[in-house]
Amino acid sequence: MKIAVVGLGLIGGSICKALKKNTFHYIMGIDNDESVTEKALEYGAVDEIITPEGLKDADMTMICLYPEAIVEFVNQHKDKFKAGSIVTDSCGVKEYVVTRCTKVLEPLGVIFVGSHPMAGREFSGFDYSTDDLFVGASYIVTPSENTPKMAIDLLATLACCMGFGKVVTATPKQHDINIAFTSQLAHVVSNAYVKSPSLFNADGFSAGSFLDLTRVAKLNEYMWSSLFLCNKEALLFELNSIIDSLNEYKTAIENDDIDTLREILKVGRERKEKSLEIYAEHNGKKANNA
Amino acid sequence: MKIAVVGLGLIGGSICKALKKNTFHYIMGIDNDESVTEKALEYGAVDEIITPEGLKDADMTMICLYPEAIVEFVNQHKDKFKAGSIVTDSCGVKEYVVTRCTKVLEPLGVIFVGSHPMAGREFSGFDYSTDDLFVGASYIVTPSENTPKMAIDLLATLACCMGFGKVVTATPKQHDINIAFTSQLAHVVSNAYVKSPSLFNADGFSAGSFLDLTRVAKLNEYMWSSLFLCNKEALLFELNSIIDSLNEYKTAIENDDIDTLREILKVGRERKEKSLEIYAEHNGKKANNA
Repeated sequence: MKIAVVGLGLIGGSICKALKKNTFHYIMGIDNDESVTEKALEYGAVDEIITPEGLKDADMTMICLYPEAIVEFVNQHKDKFKAGSIVTDSCGVKEYVVTRCTKVLEPLGVIFVGSHPMAGREFSGFDYSTDDLFVGASYIVTPSENTPKMAIDLLATLACCMGFGKVVTATPKQHDINIAFTSQLAHVVSNAYVKSPSLFNADGFSAGSFLDLTRVAKLNEYMWSSLFLCNKEALLFELNSIIDSLNEYKTAIENDDIDTLREILKVGRERKEKSLEIYAEHNGKKANNA
Repeated sequence: MKIAVVGLGLIGGSICKALKKNTFHYIMGIDNDESVTEKALEYGAVDEIITPEGLKDADMTMICLYPEAIVEFVNQHKDKFKAGSIVTDSCGVKEYVVTRCTKVLEPLGVIFVGSHPMAGREFSGFDYSTDDLFVGASYIVTPSENTPKMAIDLLATLACCMGFGKVVTATPKQHDINIAFTSQLAHVVSNAYVKSPSLFNADGFSAGSFLDLTRVAKLNEYMWSSLFLCNKEALLFELNSIIDSLNEYKTAIENDDIDTLREILKVGRERKEKSLEIYAEHNGKKANNA
């Protein structure tokens, strides 16, 4: 089949490379930056560079842009997609994108299905894309009520080809709630952590816990500010939750209340242990079914 | 020389094993738990198990207990330490321990020097101790004004024998300020993170950032509640700092203020990048001097 990939950055570029390496599909690339499209052709990441007019030949279009730009692209080029073809994306928020794109494309007989390859690097752009970026990662698909089963199966199968370790199906809303907790909050907290005036005095004192907590502070502020605002409600819920929790520890410490402090630390430890058990059990089951 | 190690848990046990493996010193162990002292003898981690009366023969005593228990032990057995000998500890707060122990021991001609081997595991007890727990880790020494230079040199040299990668000297107060930021805050934040109601729904969505942020949530609440309360002031400063920062992101998101949001994320990213540079430069210099 013919697959168009829109946006040949880290994710789009890696999708092209992974598809070229692991499938026989014909890959068509679109990018505004000519230096990027040249590199993609030269590398062999795409078979052809097309203009949006070329989308009429694509059986599937994967739009790898920031959330707002995905919606804008779909609106601008809605009449160019082939009827019956699948359009998907790769960004980290789904309700915002899925509702807007489905509204535009469904009446035209084009199937929009949100998806989120949960992979990344601390660098952006085609130069950092690799054909193994997705190996072992989770591929989240967020179908709507009207999404044909076969479209989901096709995306999941392509994900297998690209090396993903797991395909998870969720509603757009559930995706956003989960991602606010597991990814967005982690980036906010990590970025907030390094705001302490102590940061530049602590060399020699930085053990593993500090490095773990602050690894993702080095983020792309253009991408993440966009993702945060497109998932405002769920992220604010998580931010309020952790601020409330932190205030509990703070109050216990202020009051020298060792019993409460020990109890809330114990609850945290037990929750972490339980989550590790659940995840291990789930992964074990999946492994047994594989 | 003769070294007494008091408390044969994870740290005390690992010190014994590392010293036996890498030095010719005579190691004497003290522990209340007979099953532990038997194991330590059987393993060959100590040459002898002694009662506190045996401390009179020790050229150095390393007390590997929780902060309050260190102070209690020193008070209870102050008359048993040999005059001119060195007494040190291994706990994660220094001002609390150093001021109290120095006050008791200095008049008796016993040299107390605080120290903090920055290593650990998520398990406690002698059974988990290893002879390579400290390999590559930082050994922090916190001398006072009156600490003889030779005592610091001796501790630093023993740290080299035990495999530490770096010896850092700091005042007890500076140690506590730094450790509140790099270690204690990380444990509080990680433990607070898993309090979200979303925790048990997010399987399949847990990427590296989530795992990094929550790794140390699995902590020993008895040890950490003690450490936190013995370093109240510095830890509260860090907690207030991160809560204030988190509230800034929250406000920007609530107001859909993408400019502010992007700016505060950028500041965080730049601070993280700068800290990585400083640490790399420092480590490079150290490597060149080695």
